[in-house]
Amino acid sequence: MRRISDSTIRRLSLYLRFLEEFERDGEETVSSEALAHRGGTTSAQVRKDLSLFGSFGKRGLGYRVHELAEHLREILGLSRRFRLVVVGAGALGTALVQHSGFRERGFDVVAIFDNDPAKVGGKWDGLRTRDVADLERDLQANPVDIGVIAVPGDQAQVIVDCLVRCGIKAVLNFAPSQLTVPDDVALKNVNLSLDLEALTFALTALQ
Amino acid sequence: MRRISDSTIRRLSLYLRFLEEFERDGEETVSSEALAHRGGTTSAQVRKDLSLFGSFGKRGLGYRVHELAEHLREILGLSRRFRLVVVGAGALGTALVQHSGFRERGFDVVAIFDNDPAKVGGKWDGLRTRDVADLERDLQANPVDIGVIAVPGDQAQVIVDCLVRCGIKAVLNFAPSQLTVPDDVALKNVNLSLDLEALTFALTALQ
Repeated sequence: MRRISDSTIRRLSLYLRFLEEFERDGEETVSSEALAHRGGTTSAQVRKDLSLFGSFGKRGLGYRVHELAEHLREILGLSRRFRLVVVGAGALGTALVQHSGFRERGFDVVAIFDNDPAKVGGKWDGLRTRDVADLERDLQANPVDIGVIAVPGDQAQVIVDCLVRCGIKAVLNFAPSQLTVPDDVALKNVNLSLDLEALTFALTALQ
Repeated sequence: MRRISDSTIRRLSLYLRFLEEFERDGEETVSSEALAHRGGTTSAQVRKDLSLFGSFGKRGLGYRVHELAEHLREILGLSRRFRLVVVGAGALGTALVQHSGFRERGFDVVAIFDNDPAKVGGKWDGLRTRDVADLERDLQANPVDIGVIAVPGDQAQVIVDCLVRCGIKAVLNFAPSQLTVPDDVALKNVNLSLDLEALTFALTALQ
């Protein structure tokens, strides 16, 4: 696997969003300066990021919007749809199931699980919450690409171990705990309290 | 304002979590190696991060757990509570209102707003959803520290402009759009689709 930094990937995702806006506006070409300006970065950074994946654009002419967008979708693996399973049917898990932004970007939540009998059977956006006891059997029968963990911190490692056993190679973790996964599994942590603490640090430093 | 990188702040937040676990376990001292090991970093990095804020710990003795935790809470601005307002009462906004993790970390959601008459008046965790038309007046009367934006992308800039007019200096943005704020306002973007795309990149690169 090529070693590309997280921040590069993030910028590529942002460039793709801007290109899609330009596509909608009927623009045919775009300069690295325009992409940089929209992304709050420099044109040298845009050219450097893109050069990691080949040669795009023509000097003086810029990039062809539709062509570059297609390339970025391929690089980011977005030329296909991905199947997600959400474990944890609390406020966060059920919000994720209902999040229309996922579907628009090619992510289909195909199942949601919980261990609370009061939550099992509940219906969210057409999906019925299933018993986590059936997680392993269900995933063997219907494999998914990405596991989303929205359970309390002390239950998260058990769940991620189960997902890994079922062959899942990508995990998005919302639980406030450090998870251990094998080297060939991609793990991304989302921790809203950590994001808030970056803000409180800024607020405190401002005073 | 001191220029401390986002990744440093994030590590400080993680160190604090580990220290709080050590506190609960009754540990009195901890070495930089132990903190580094829990955080997946090096002891040199731990010492470097902490040295930015003063001199902690004694050579050979390590850090006093409770004392260092107190220092980190002060540095991160967590020795007080913060008031949050959530704008947008969709699935995500209402999930945030119900998120118990915020309260545990010192963040109190004091109000939630929406512009949809069908949502105004709805009750979430004891808070009644208010009309966004009253946002500015309400915030003038009851100032908050942090604004959380959970509205569709095309409405986010209008909302953040309003929050800034009301004197809010810290914004957590969940809308999938690049927002513009004055230099003295701290802005943190959370974009779940971008996080998922980091995973699809990894999945694609693995194949």
